[in-house]
Amino acid sequence: MKAMTTAQKNHSMALDNYRARVNGCLATHLSQSSALSENMRYSVLAGGKRFRPILTYTTASVFGVDLTQADSCACAVELIHIYSLIHDDLPAMDDDDMRHNQPANHTRFGVGQAILSGDALQALAFDVLTKNDSIDPETRVILVRQLSRAAFAMAEGQSIDLSIVSKNVEIDLLYSMHRKKTGALLQCAVMLGALLKPDLSSEDKVILSSFSADIGLAYQVQDDVLDVSTSDAVLGKRQNSDADKDKPTFPSILGMKESKKVYRSLYEKACEGVLQLSMDEAPLIELTQKLLSRTF
Amino acid sequence: MKAMTTAQKNHSMALDNYRARVNGCLATHLSQSSALSENMRYSVLAGGKRFRPILTYTTASVFGVDLTQADSCACAVELIHIYSLIHDDLPAMDDDDMRHNQPANHTRFGVGQAILSGDALQALAFDVLTKNDSIDPETRVILVRQLSRAAFAMAEGQSIDLSIVSKNVEIDLLYSMHRKKTGALLQCAVMLGALLKPDLSSEDKVILSSFSADIGLAYQVQDDVLDVSTSDAVLGKRQNSDADKDKPTFPSILGMKESKKVYRSLYEKACEGVLQLSMDEAPLIELTQKLLSRTF
Repeated sequence: MKAMTTAQKNHSMALDNYRARVNGCLATHLSQSSALSENMRYSVLAGGKRFRPILTYTTASVFGVDLTQADSCACAVELIHIYSLIHDDLPAMDDDDMRHNQPANHTRFGVGQAILSGDALQALAFDVLTKNDSIDPETRVILVRQLSRAAFAMAEGQSIDLSIVSKNVEIDLLYSMHRKKTGALLQCAVMLGALLKPDLSSEDKVILSSFSADIGLAYQVQDDVLDVSTSDAVLGKRQNSDADKDKPTFPSILGMKESKKVYRSLYEKACEGVLQLSMDEAPLIELTQKLLSRTF
Repeated sequence: MKAMTTAQKNHSMALDNYRARVNGCLATHLSQSSALSENMRYSVLAGGKRFRPILTYTTASVFGVDLTQADSCACAVELIHIYSLIHDDLPAMDDDDMRHNQPANHTRFGVGQAILSGDALQALAFDVLTKNDSIDPETRVILVRQLSRAAFAMAEGQSIDLSIVSKNVEIDLLYSMHRKKTGALLQCAVMLGALLKPDLSSEDKVILSSFSADIGLAYQVQDDVLDVSTSDAVLGKRQNSDADKDKPTFPSILGMKESKKVYRSLYEKACEGVLQLSMDEAPLIELTQKLLSRTF
Protein backbone atom coordinates (compact mmCIF):
# COMPACT_ATOMS: atom_id res chain seq x y z
CA MET A 1 0.00 0.00 0.00
CA LYS A 2 1.34 3.40 -0.99
CA ALA A 3 1.88 5.97 1.77
CA MET A 4 -0.47 8.96 1.54
CA THR A 5 0.98 12.28 0.42
CA THR A 6 0.54 15.30 2.69
CA ALA A 7 -2.16 16.68 0.36
CA GLN A 8 -4.04 13.39 0.48
CA LYS A 9 -3.76 13.30 4.28
CA ASN A 10 -5.11 16.85 4.53
CA HIS A 11 -7.95 15.99 2.19
CA SER A 12 -8.80 12.90 4.19
CA MET A 13 -8.82 14.93 7.41
CA ALA A 14 -11.09 17.53 5.80
CA LEU A 15 -13.61 14.80 4.91
CA ASP A 16 -13.53 13.44 8.47
CA ASN A 17 -14.13 16.95 9.75
CA TYR A 18 -17.08 17.47 7.41
CA ARG A 19 -18.57 14.14 8.48
CA ALA A 20 -18.20 15.01 12.17
CA ARG A 21 -19.57 18.48 11.51
CA VAL A 22 -22.76 17.31 9.81
CA ASN A 23 -23.29 14.57 12.39
CA GLY A 24 -23.17 17.19 15.13
CA CYS A 25 -25.62 19.48 13.30
CA LEU A 26 -28.03 16.63 12.51
CA ALA A 27 -28.05 15.56 16.17
CA THR A 28 -28.92 19.14 17.17
CA HIS A 29 -31.81 19.33 14.69
CA LEU A 30 -33.17 16.04 16.05
CA SER A 31 -32.68 16.86 19.71
CA GLN A 32 -36.24 18.03 20.34
CA SER A 33 -38.43 15.35 21.80
CA SER A 34 -41.40 14.47 19.57
CA ALA A 35 -43.67 11.57 18.69
CA LEU A 36 -41.29 10.52 15.93
CA SER A 37 -37.95 11.57 17.38
CA GLU A 38 -36.77 8.08 18.33
CA ASN A 39 -37.61 6.73 14.85
CA MET A 40 -35.98 9.65 13.06
CA ARG A 41 -32.83 9.57 15.18
CA TYR A 42 -32.56 5.79 14.66
CA SER A 43 -32.14 6.23 10.91
CA VAL A 44 -30.48 9.64 10.67
CA LEU A 45 -27.82 9.02 13.30
CA ALA A 46 -27.06 5.43 12.22
CA GLY A 47 -24.01 6.55 10.32
CA GLY A 48 -23.73 6.38 6.59
CA LYS A 49 -21.06 7.87 4.38
CA ARG A 50 -22.45 11.42 4.54
CA PHE A 51 -21.31 11.79 0.97
CA ARG A 52 -23.89 14.41 0.07
CA PRO A 53 -23.03 16.76 2.98
CA ILE A 54 -19.33 16.26 2.17
CA LEU A 55 -20.06 17.41 -1.39
CA THR A 56 -21.87 20.48 -0.05
CA TYR A 57 -19.09 21.43 2.36
CA THR A 58 -16.35 20.79 -0.20
CA THR A 59 -18.05 22.96 -2.82
CA ALA A 60 -18.75 25.69 -0.27
CA SER A 61 -15.09 25.68 0.80
CA VAL A 62 -13.93 25.89 -2.83
CA PHE A 63 -16.00 29.08 -3.13
CA GLY A 64 -14.79 30.51 0.17
CA VAL A 65 -18.21 30.25 1.81
CA ASP A 66 -18.33 30.25 5.62
CA LEU A 67 -19.14 26.68 6.66
CA THR A 68 -21.69 27.83 9.24
CA GLN A 69 -23.76 28.91 6.23
CA ALA A 70 -23.25 25.51 4.60
CA ASP A 71 -24.41 23.59 7.70
CA SER A 72 -28.12 23.96 7.00
CA CYS A 73 -27.68 22.93 3.35
CA ALA A 74 -25.58 19.91 4.29
CA CYS A 75 -28.16 18.78 6.85
CA ALA A 76 -31.16 19.39 4.62
CA VAL A 77 -29.70 17.32 1.77
CA GLU A 78 -28.83 14.47 4.13
CA LEU A 79 -32.32 14.54 5.72
CA ILE A 80 -33.88 14.17 2.26
CA HIS A 81 -31.46 11.33 1.50
CA ILE A 82 -32.25 9.45 4.73
CA TYR A 83 -36.02 9.87 4.26
CA SER A 84 -35.65 8.37 0.78
CA LEU A 85 -33.72 5.38 2.16
CA ILE A 86 -36.44 4.74 4.77
CA HIS A 87 -39.16 4.79 2.10
CA ASP A 88 -37.10 2.84 -0.47
CA ASP A 89 -36.54 0.03 2.04
CA LEU A 90 -40.29 -0.49 2.64
CA PRO A 91 -41.86 -3.85 1.71
CA ALA A 92 -43.94 -2.18 -1.05
CA MET A 93 -40.78 -0.64 -2.53
CA ASP A 94 -37.37 -2.38 -2.47
CA ASP A 95 -38.26 -4.52 0.56
CA ASP A 96 -34.85 -4.34 2.24
CA ASP A 97 -34.65 -5.34 5.89
CA MET A 98 -31.11 -4.10 6.59
CA ARG A 99 -29.63 -0.62 6.25
CA HIS A 100 -26.37 0.75 7.67
CA ASN A 101 -25.76 -2.60 9.36
CA GLN A 102 -28.92 -2.41 11.44
CA PRO A 103 -32.54 -3.44 10.84
CA ALA A 104 -34.30 -1.08 8.42
CA ASN A 105 -36.55 1.57 10.01
CA HIS A 106 -39.78 -0.33 9.23
CA THR A 107 -38.32 -3.58 10.60
CA ARG A 108 -37.68 -1.80 13.89
CA PHE A 109 -40.73 0.49 14.12
CA GLY A 110 -43.33 -0.94 11.74
CA VAL A 111 -44.29 0.18 8.23
CA GLY A 112 -46.72 2.93 9.23
CA GLN A 113 -44.31 4.69 11.58
CA ALA A 114 -41.49 4.30 9.03
CA ILE A 115 -43.56 6.05 6.35
CA LEU A 116 -44.30 8.86 8.82
CA SER A 117 -40.64 9.16 9.86
CA GLY A 118 -39.72 9.69 6.21
CA ASP A 119 -42.54 12.20 5.77
CA ALA A 120 -41.46 14.15 8.84
CA LEU A 121 -37.80 14.14 7.73
CA GLN A 122 -38.76 15.66 4.38
CA ALA A 123 -40.65 18.44 6.16
CA LEU A 124 -37.76 18.92 8.60
CA ALA A 125 -35.31 19.36 5.71
CA PHE A 126 -37.19 22.46 4.49
CA ASP A 127 -37.47 23.80 8.02
CA VAL A 128 -33.72 23.40 8.58
CA LEU A 129 -32.90 24.94 5.20
CA THR A 130 -34.89 28.10 5.89
CA LYS A 131 -34.07 28.74 9.52
CA ASN A 132 -30.42 29.70 9.00
CA ASP A 133 -30.64 33.49 9.40
CA SER A 134 -27.02 33.98 8.37
CA ILE A 135 -28.12 33.35 4.76
CA ASP A 136 -29.98 36.20 3.05
CA PRO A 137 -33.64 35.48 2.19
CA GLU A 138 -33.15 35.69 -1.61
CA THR A 139 -30.57 32.92 -1.41
CA ARG A 140 -32.70 30.83 0.95
CA VAL A 141 -35.56 30.92 -1.55
CA ILE A 142 -33.19 29.71 -4.28
CA LEU A 143 -31.96 26.90 -2.02
CA VAL A 144 -35.52 25.74 -1.24
CA ARG A 145 -36.36 25.70 -4.94
CA GLN A 146 -33.27 23.62 -5.74
CA LEU A 147 -33.97 21.14 -2.95
CA SER A 148 -37.69 20.80 -3.62
CA ARG A 149 -37.06 20.10 -7.30
CA ALA A 150 -34.36 17.56 -6.50
CA ALA A 151 -36.64 15.83 -3.98
CA PHE A 152 -39.42 15.76 -6.58
CA ALA A 153 -37.10 14.27 -9.23
CA MET A 154 -35.90 11.68 -6.72
CA ALA A 155 -39.46 10.45 -6.12
CA GLU A 156 -40.02 10.32 -9.88
CA GLY A 157 -36.84 8.30 -10.34
CA GLN A 158 -37.84 5.82 -7.67
CA SER A 159 -41.26 5.53 -9.33
CA ILE A 160 -39.61 4.58 -12.64
CA ASP A 161 -37.31 2.16 -10.79
CA LEU A 162 -40.33 0.46 -9.22
CA SER A 163 -42.18 0.27 -12.52
CA ILE A 164 -39.42 -1.53 -14.44
CA VAL A 165 -38.86 -4.48 -12.09
CA SER A 166 -38.73 -7.73 -14.15
CA LYS A 167 -38.87 -5.78 -17.40
CA ASN A 168 -36.52 -5.49 -20.33
CA VAL A 169 -35.64 -1.85 -20.69
CA GLU A 170 -33.42 0.23 -22.91
CA ILE A 171 -30.21 1.56 -21.37
CA ASP A 172 -31.45 5.12 -22.03
CA LEU A 173 -34.32 4.65 -19.60
CA LEU A 174 -31.85 3.44 -17.00
CA TYR A 175 -29.73 6.57 -17.54
CA SER A 176 -32.76 8.79 -17.20
CA MET A 177 -33.97 6.91 -14.11
CA HIS A 178 -30.56 7.09 -12.39
CA ARG A 179 -30.26 10.82 -13.18
CA LYS A 180 -33.49 11.41 -11.30
CA LYS A 181 -33.31 8.79 -8.57
CA THR A 182 -29.76 9.50 -7.38
CA GLY A 183 -28.28 12.15 -9.65
CA ALA A 184 -30.70 14.98 -8.86
CA LEU A 185 -29.97 15.04 -5.12
CA LEU A 186 -26.19 14.64 -5.59
CA GLN A 187 -26.27 17.49 -8.07
CA CYS A 188 -28.30 19.53 -5.59
CA ALA A 189 -25.73 18.81 -2.84
CA VAL A 190 -23.03 20.44 -4.97
CA MET A 191 -25.18 23.32 -6.19
CA LEU A 192 -26.38 24.30 -2.69
CA GLY A 193 -22.77 24.67 -1.56
CA ALA A 194 -21.99 26.91 -4.55
CA LEU A 195 -25.20 28.97 -4.48
CA LEU A 196 -24.27 30.20 -1.02
CA LYS A 197 -21.75 32.44 -2.79
CA PRO A 198 -23.98 35.39 -3.67
CA ASP A 199 -22.06 36.50 -6.78
CA LEU A 200 -21.54 33.03 -8.27
CA SER A 201 -20.86 33.56 -11.98
CA SER A 202 -23.13 31.92 -14.52
CA GLU A 203 -20.06 30.24 -16.07
CA ASP A 204 -19.13 28.58 -12.78
CA LYS A 205 -22.77 27.58 -12.28
CA VAL A 206 -22.85 25.80 -15.64
CA ILE A 207 -19.51 24.05 -14.99
CA LEU A 208 -20.63 22.84 -11.56
CA SER A 209 -23.99 21.76 -12.86
CA SER A 210 -22.33 19.56 -15.45
CA PHE A 211 -19.71 18.28 -12.98
CA SER A 212 -22.34 17.32 -10.41
CA ALA A 213 -24.62 15.71 -13.00
CA ASP A 214 -21.70 13.51 -14.13
CA ILE A 215 -20.67 12.39 -10.67
CA GLY A 216 -24.32 11.89 -9.70
CA LEU A 217 -24.87 9.50 -12.56
CA ALA A 218 -21.45 7.82 -12.12
CA TYR A 219 -22.22 7.24 -8.45
CA GLN A 220 -25.39 5.27 -9.18
CA VAL A 221 -23.83 3.19 -11.98
CA GLN A 222 -21.02 2.40 -9.54
CA ASP A 223 -23.62 1.48 -6.89
CA ASP A 224 -25.10 -1.04 -9.33
CA VAL A 225 -21.62 -2.55 -9.81
CA LEU A 226 -20.82 -2.58 -6.08
CA ASP A 227 -24.18 -4.25 -5.37
CA VAL A 228 -22.90 -7.26 -7.34
CA SER A 229 -19.28 -7.28 -6.18
CA THR A 230 -19.28 -6.28 -2.50
CA SER A 231 -20.20 -8.28 0.62
CA ASP A 232 -23.19 -7.54 2.91
CA ALA A 233 -20.98 -6.48 5.83
CA VAL A 234 -19.11 -3.89 3.76
CA LEU A 235 -22.26 -2.57 2.04
CA GLY A 236 -24.22 -2.46 5.31
CA LYS A 237 -27.15 -3.96 3.39
CA ARG A 238 -27.82 -7.14 1.39
CA GLN A 239 -25.48 -7.89 -1.50
CA ASN A 240 -26.94 -8.70 -4.91
CA SER A 241 -30.28 -7.28 -3.84
CA ASP A 242 -30.88 -5.77 -7.31
CA ALA A 243 -30.50 -9.17 -9.02
CA ASP A 244 -32.62 -10.89 -6.35
CA LYS A 245 -35.39 -8.40 -7.12
CA ASP A 246 -34.98 -8.84 -10.86
CA LYS A 247 -34.20 -5.15 -11.30
CA PRO A 248 -32.64 -4.06 -14.57
CA THR A 249 -29.24 -2.52 -13.76
CA PHE A 250 -26.19 -1.37 -15.67
CA PRO A 251 -24.37 -4.70 -15.07
CA SER A 252 -27.46 -6.71 -16.07
CA ILE A 253 -27.77 -4.80 -19.36
CA LEU A 254 -24.17 -3.84 -20.23
CA GLY A 255 -22.19 -6.40 -18.21
CA MET A 256 -19.73 -5.64 -15.40
CA LYS A 257 -16.79 -4.64 -17.57
CA GLU A 258 -18.74 -2.14 -19.65
CA SER A 259 -20.53 -0.73 -16.58
CA LYS A 260 -17.19 -0.06 -14.89
CA LYS A 261 -16.07 1.77 -18.03
CA VAL A 262 -19.23 3.90 -17.96
CA TYR A 263 -18.79 5.19 -14.45
CA ARG A 264 -15.02 5.62 -14.76
CA SER A 265 -15.36 7.72 -17.87
CA LEU A 266 -18.11 9.80 -16.24
CA TYR A 267 -15.84 10.53 -13.26
CA GLU A 268 -13.02 11.40 -15.69
CA LYS A 269 -15.29 13.72 -17.66
CA ALA A 270 -16.33 15.37 -14.40
CA CYS A 271 -12.69 15.99 -13.43
CA GLU A 272 -11.83 17.43 -16.83
CA GLY A 273 -14.81 19.78 -16.91
CA VAL A 274 -14.27 21.17 -13.45
CA LEU A 275 -10.75 22.34 -14.42
CA GLN A 276 -12.44 25.33 -16.09
CA LEU A 277 -13.76 26.63 -12.76
CA SER A 278 -12.67 30.15 -11.78
CA MET A 279 -11.71 28.83 -8.31
CA ASP A 280 -9.16 26.22 -7.18
CA GLU A 281 -10.91 23.00 -8.11
CA ALA A 282 -8.40 20.64 -6.41
CA PRO A 283 -10.68 19.59 -3.50
CA LEU A 284 -13.46 18.61 -5.94
CA ILE A 285 -11.04 16.54 -8.03
CA GLU A 286 -9.63 14.80 -4.95
CA LEU A 287 -13.14 14.00 -3.80
CA THR A 288 -14.03 12.60 -7.22
CA GLN A 289 -10.93 10.40 -7.17
CA LYS A 290 -11.90 9.18 -3.72
CA LEU A 291 -15.32 8.27 -5.10
CA LEU A 292 -13.82 6.44 -8.05
CA SER A 293 -11.84 4.22 -5.67
CA ARG A 294 -14.65 3.60 -3.15
CA THR A 295 -15.55 0.01 -2.31
CA PHE A 296 -19.00 0.63 -0.78
CA MET B 1 -85.73 26.03 4.35
CA LYS B 2 -84.90 29.68 4.94
CA ALA B 3 -84.01 31.80 1.91
CA MET B 4 -80.41 33.01 1.87
CA THR B 5 -79.74 36.68 2.56
CA THR B 6 -77.79 38.68 -0.03
CA ALA B 7 -74.71 38.59 2.21
CA GLN B 8 -74.96 34.81 2.52
CA LYS B 9 -75.38 34.47 -1.24
CA ASN B 10 -72.30 36.64 -1.86
CA HIS B 11 -70.31 34.61 0.66
CA SER B 12 -71.40 31.35 -0.95
CA MET B 13 -70.36 32.67 -4.38
CA ALA B 14 -67.00 33.74 -3.00
CA LEU B 15 -66.36 30.20 -1.73
CA ASP B 16 -67.29 28.72 -5.10
CA ASN B 17 -64.90 31.15 -6.77
CA TYR B 18 -62.08 30.23 -4.40
CA ARG B 19 -62.69 26.53 -5.03
CA ALA B 20 -62.64 27.02 -8.81
CA ARG B 21 -59.59 29.23 -8.50
CA VAL B 22 -57.50 26.71 -6.56
CA ASN B 23 -58.64 23.87 -8.82
CA GLY B 24 -57.38 25.80 -11.84
CA CYS B 25 -54.04 26.56 -10.19
CA LEU B 26 -53.56 22.96 -9.00
CA ALA B 27 -54.24 21.66 -12.51
CA THR B 28 -51.59 24.03 -13.87
CA HIS B 29 -48.99 22.88 -11.34
CA LEU B 30 -49.70 19.26 -12.28
CA SER B 31 -49.80 19.80 -16.04
CA GLN B 32 -46.19 18.75 -16.66
CA SER B 33 -45.88 15.16 -17.72
CA SER B 34 -43.80 13.08 -15.32
CA ALA B 35 -43.45 9.52 -14.04
CA LEU B 36 -45.93 10.26 -11.27
CA SER B 37 -48.21 12.81 -12.93
CA GLU B 38 -51.13 10.44 -13.53
CA ASN B 39 -51.05 9.25 -9.90
CA MET B 40 -50.76 12.75 -8.51
CA ARG B 41 -53.51 14.18 -10.70
CA TYR B 42 -55.77 11.27 -9.78
CA SER B 43 -55.77 12.28 -6.12
CA VAL B 44 -55.27 16.03 -6.31
CA LEU B 45 -57.93 16.68 -8.94
CA ALA B 46 -60.49 14.24 -7.49
CA GLY B 47 -62.37 17.04 -5.83
CA GLY B 48 -62.54 17.49 -2.12
CA LYS B 49 -63.90 20.42 -0.19
CA ARG B 50 -60.79 22.60 -0.70
CA PHE B 51 -61.44 23.93 2.76
CA ARG B 52 -57.80 24.79 3.46
CA PRO B 53 -57.34 26.88 0.27
CA ILE B 54 -60.67 28.58 1.01
CA LEU B 55 -59.33 29.52 4.44
CA THR B 56 -56.17 30.94 2.84
CA TYR B 57 -58.06 32.98 0.24
CA THR B 58 -60.61 34.23 2.77
CA THR B 59 -57.91 35.39 5.18
CA ALA B 60 -55.91 36.98 2.37
CA SER B 61 -59.02 38.86 1.19
CA VAL B 62 -59.75 40.08 4.73
CA PHE B 63 -56.26 41.63 4.74
CA GLY B 64 -56.61 43.12 1.27
CA VAL B 65 -53.94 40.85 -0.21
CA ASP B 66 -53.97 40.35 -4.00
CA LEU B 67 -55.30 36.82 -4.60
CA THR B 68 -52.61 36.08 -7.21
CA GLN B 69 -50.20 36.17 -4.27
CA ALA B 70 -52.41 33.82 -2.29
CA ASP B 71 -52.60 31.25 -5.11
CA SER B 72 -49.28 29.60 -4.34
CA CYS B 73 -50.08 29.40 -0.62
CA ALA B 74 -53.54 27.95 -1.27
CA CYS B 75 -52.08 25.31 -3.60
CA ALA B 76 -49.16 24.42 -1.35
CA VAL B 77 -51.41 23.82 1.64
CA GLU B 78 -53.78 21.66 -0.41
CA LEU B 79 -50.89 19.64 -1.88
CA ILE B 80 -49.67 18.85 1.65
CA HIS B 81 -53.23 17.91 2.64
CA ILE B 82 -53.69 15.58 -0.32
CA TYR B 83 -50.31 13.91 0.20
CA SER B 84 -51.33 13.25 3.82
CA LEU B 85 -54.62 11.67 2.72
CA ILE B 86 -52.78 9.35 0.29
CA HIS B 87 -50.39 8.22 3.03
CA ASP B 88 -53.10 8.01 5.73
CA ASP B 89 -55.19 5.72 3.53
CA LEU B 90 -52.35 3.16 3.12
CA PRO B 91 -52.86 -0.37 4.48
CA ALA B 92 -50.12 0.17 7.09
CA MET B 93 -51.86 3.33 8.29
CA ASP B 94 -55.66 3.75 8.32
CA ASP B 95 -56.21 1.15 5.58
CA ASP B 96 -59.02 2.99 3.78
CA ASP B 97 -59.84 1.86 0.25
CA MET B 98 -62.16 4.75 -0.71
CA ARG B 99 -61.47 8.49 -0.82
CA HIS B 100 -63.50 11.25 -2.48
CA ASN B 101 -65.92 8.60 -3.82
CA GLN B 102 -63.22 6.80 -5.81
CA PRO B 103 -60.74 4.03 -4.96
CA ALA B 104 -57.89 5.29 -2.77
CA ASN B 105 -54.61 6.08 -4.56
CA HIS B 106 -52.92 2.82 -3.45
CA THR B 107 -55.97 0.77 -4.50
CA ARG B 108 -55.63 2.25 -7.97
CA PHE B 109 -51.82 2.45 -8.38
CA GLY B 110 -50.37 0.10 -5.75
CA VAL B 111 -48.83 0.90 -2.37
CA GLY B 112 -45.32 1.73 -3.60
CA GLN B 113 -46.47 4.25 -6.19
CA ALA B 114 -48.95 5.75 -3.71
CA ILE B 115 -46.16 6.37 -1.18
CA LEU B 116 -44.09 8.02 -3.92
CA SER B 117 -47.02 10.16 -5.11
CA GLY B 118 -47.37 11.50 -1.58
CA ASP B 119 -43.63 12.09 -1.32
CA ALA B 120 -43.57 13.97 -4.62
CA LEU B 121 -46.59 16.09 -3.64
CA GLN B 122 -44.86 17.19 -0.45
CA ALA B 123 -41.79 18.26 -2.47
CA LEU B 124 -44.03 19.97 -5.04
CA ALA B 125 -45.74 21.99 -2.30
CA PHE B 126 -42.44 23.67 -1.37
CA ASP B 127 -41.59 24.23 -5.01
CA VAL B 128 -44.96 25.90 -5.66
CA LEU B 129 -44.68 27.99 -2.49
CA THR B 130 -41.31 29.45 -3.47
CA LYS B 131 -41.77 30.03 -7.19
CA ASN B 132 -44.27 32.89 -6.88
CA ASP B 133 -42.02 35.85 -7.68
CA SER B 134 -44.74 38.36 -6.85
CA ILE B 135 -44.06 37.65 -3.15
CA ASP B 136 -40.88 39.17 -1.71
CA PRO B 137 -38.18 36.66 -0.66
CA GLU B 138 -38.36 37.55 3.07
CA THR B 139 -42.04 36.63 3.09
CA ARG B 140 -41.48 33.47 1.05
CA VAL B 141 -38.96 32.26 3.63
CA ILE B 142 -41.50 32.86 6.40
CA LEU B 143 -44.16 30.94 4.42
CA VAL B 144 -41.85 27.96 3.89
CA ARG B 145 -41.04 27.88 7.60
CA GLN B 146 -44.74 27.93 8.52
CA LEU B 147 -45.61 25.18 6.06
CA SER B 148 -42.66 22.93 6.89
CA ARG B 149 -43.44 23.10 10.60
CA ALA B 150 -47.12 22.39 9.99
CA ALA B 151 -46.24 19.41 7.77
CA PHE B 152 -43.88 18.13 10.44
CA ALA B 153 -46.53 18.46 13.16
CA MET B 154 -49.05 16.70 10.91
CA ALA B 155 -46.77 13.66 10.57
CA GLU B 156 -46.25 13.66 14.33
CA GLY B 157 -50.01 13.78 14.91
CA GLN B 158 -50.61 10.87 12.58
CA SER B 159 -47.85 8.94 14.38
CA ILE B 160 -49.65 9.43 17.71
CA ASP B 161 -52.96 8.47 16.06
CA LEU B 162 -51.42 5.23 14.80
CA SER B 163 -49.86 4.44 18.17
CA ILE B 164 -53.10 4.67 20.18
CA VAL B 165 -55.27 2.26 18.17
CA SER B 166 -57.10 -0.11 20.55
CA LYS B 167 -55.80 1.78 23.59
CA ASN B 168 -57.49 3.64 26.38
CA VAL B 169 -56.22 7.18 26.30
CA GLU B 170 -56.88 10.38 28.20
CA ILE B 171 -58.89 13.05 26.41
CA ASP B 172 -55.88 15.40 26.72
CA LEU B 173 -53.80 13.16 24.46
CA LEU B 174 -56.62 13.23 21.91
CA TYR B 175 -56.67 17.04 22.05
CA SER B 176 -52.93 17.19 21.55
CA MET B 177 -53.04 14.62 18.71
CA HIS B 178 -55.85 16.45 16.89
CA ARG B 179 -54.03 19.78 17.24
CA LYS B 180 -51.05 18.30 15.42
CA LYS B 181 -52.74 15.92 12.99
CA THR B 182 -55.36 18.31 11.61
CA GLY B 183 -55.06 21.58 13.52
CA ALA B 184 -51.52 22.51 12.50
CA LEU B 185 -52.22 22.55 8.75
CA LEU B 186 -55.56 24.34 9.13
CA GLN B 187 -53.88 26.94 11.29
CA CYS B 188 -51.14 27.24 8.67
CA ALA B 189 -53.76 27.75 5.92
CA VAL B 190 -55.07 30.82 7.77
CA MET B 191 -51.65 32.16 8.73
CA LEU B 192 -50.21 31.92 5.19
CA GLY B 193 -53.07 34.08 3.92
CA ALA B 194 -52.40 36.70 6.60
CA LEU B 195 -48.59 36.63 6.42
CA LEU B 196 -48.80 37.79 2.79
CA LYS B 197 -49.63 41.20 4.23
CA PRO B 198 -46.10 42.52 4.85
CA ASP B 199 -46.99 44.83 7.76
CA LEU B 200 -49.29 42.42 9.60
CA SER B 201 -49.45 43.66 13.20
CA SER B 202 -48.36 41.33 15.99
CA GLU B 203 -51.80 41.81 17.62
CA ASP B 204 -53.60 40.56 14.48
CA LYS B 205 -51.13 37.70 14.23
CA VAL B 206 -51.93 36.55 17.77
CA ILE B 207 -55.69 36.86 17.20
CA LEU B 208 -55.52 34.85 13.97
CA SER B 209 -53.27 32.26 15.49
CA SER B 210 -55.78 31.65 18.26
CA PHE B 211 -58.77 31.74 15.85
CA SER B 212 -57.18 29.22 13.51
CA ALA B 213 -56.07 26.92 16.33
CA ASP B 214 -59.67 26.84 17.60
CA ILE B 215 -61.27 26.07 14.25
CA GLY B 216 -58.52 23.55 13.44
CA LEU B 217 -59.29 21.59 16.58
CA ALA B 218 -63.08 22.01 16.21
CA TYR B 219 -62.88 20.70 12.66
CA GLN B 220 -61.28 17.41 13.70
CA VAL B 221 -63.63 16.85 16.67
CA GLN B 222 -66.51 17.48 14.24
CA ASP B 223 -64.91 14.99 11.81
CA ASP B 224 -64.98 12.36 14.57
CA VAL B 225 -68.70 13.09 15.09
CA LEU B 226 -69.51 13.06 11.36
CA ASP B 227 -67.66 9.76 10.95
CA VAL B 228 -70.30 8.20 13.22
CA SER B 229 -73.37 10.04 11.94
CA THR B 230 -72.95 10.46 8.16
CA SER B 231 -73.37 7.95 5.33
CA ASP B 232 -70.54 6.66 3.07
CA ALA B 233 -71.88 8.42 -0.04
CA VAL B 234 -71.96 11.81 1.67
CA LEU B 235 -68.57 11.36 3.36
CA GLY B 236 -66.96 10.02 0.16
CA LYS B 237 -65.28 7.38 2.34
CA ARG B 238 -66.39 4.61 4.70
CA GLN B 239 -68.65 5.60 7.56
CA ASN B 240 -67.77 4.51 11.09
CA SER B 241 -64.24 3.74 9.99
CA ASP B 242 -62.80 5.05 13.29
CA ALA B 243 -64.92 2.63 15.33
CA ASP B 244 -64.18 -0.26 12.96
CA LYS B 245 -60.47 0.35 13.54
CA ASP B 246 -60.94 0.65 17.30
CA LYS B 247 -59.55 4.18 17.28
CA PRO B 248 -60.15 6.31 20.35
CA THR B 249 -62.17 9.37 19.25
CA PHE B 250 -64.03 12.21 20.92
CA PRO B 251 -67.40 10.37 20.63
CA SER B 252 -65.89 7.13 21.97
CA ILE B 253 -64.47 8.92 25.03
CA LEU B 254 -66.91 11.78 25.67
CA GLY B 255 -70.04 10.52 23.87
CA MET B 256 -71.77 12.20 20.92
CA LYS B 257 -73.59 14.87 22.87
CA GLU B 258 -70.53 16.11 24.73
CA SER B 259 -68.37 15.94 21.58
CA LYS B 260 -70.84 18.15 19.71
CA LYS B 261 -70.69 20.60 22.60
CA VAL B 262 -66.88 20.64 22.40
CA TYR B 263 -66.68 21.56 18.73
CA ARG B 264 -69.55 24.02 18.87
CA SER B 265 -68.01 25.91 21.75
CA LEU B 266 -64.63 25.94 19.98
CA TYR B 267 -66.23 27.46 16.86
CA GLU B 268 -68.01 30.00 19.09
CA LYS B 269 -64.79 30.90 20.87
CA ALA B 270 -63.12 31.34 17.46
CA CYS B 271 -65.84 33.75 16.33
CA GLU B 272 -65.66 35.78 19.53
CA GLY B 273 -61.88 36.10 19.44
CA VAL B 274 -61.70 37.18 15.82
CA LEU B 275 -63.96 40.19 16.56
CA GLN B 276 -60.84 41.93 17.93
CA LEU B 277 -59.15 41.90 14.52
CA SER B 278 -58.16 45.31 13.10
CA MET B 279 -59.80 44.35 9.77
CA ASP B 280 -63.42 43.48 8.85
CA GLU B 281 -63.67 39.93 10.22
CA ALA B 282 -67.13 39.16 8.70
CA PRO B 283 -65.90 36.72 6.00
CA LEU B 284 -64.03 34.67 8.61
CA ILE B 285 -67.10 34.51 10.83
CA GLU B 286 -69.35 33.51 7.93
CA LEU B 287 -66.88 30.78 7.00
CA THR B 288 -66.80 29.51 10.57
CA GLN B 289 -70.60 29.40 10.66
CA LYS B 290 -70.58 27.46 7.42
CA LEU B 291 -68.17 24.98 8.99
CA LEU B 292 -70.34 24.60 12.07
CA SER B 293 -73.26 23.57 9.90
CA ARG B 294 -71.35 21.25 7.55
CA THR B 295 -72.61 17.70 7.16
CA PHE B 296 -69.43 16.15 5.68
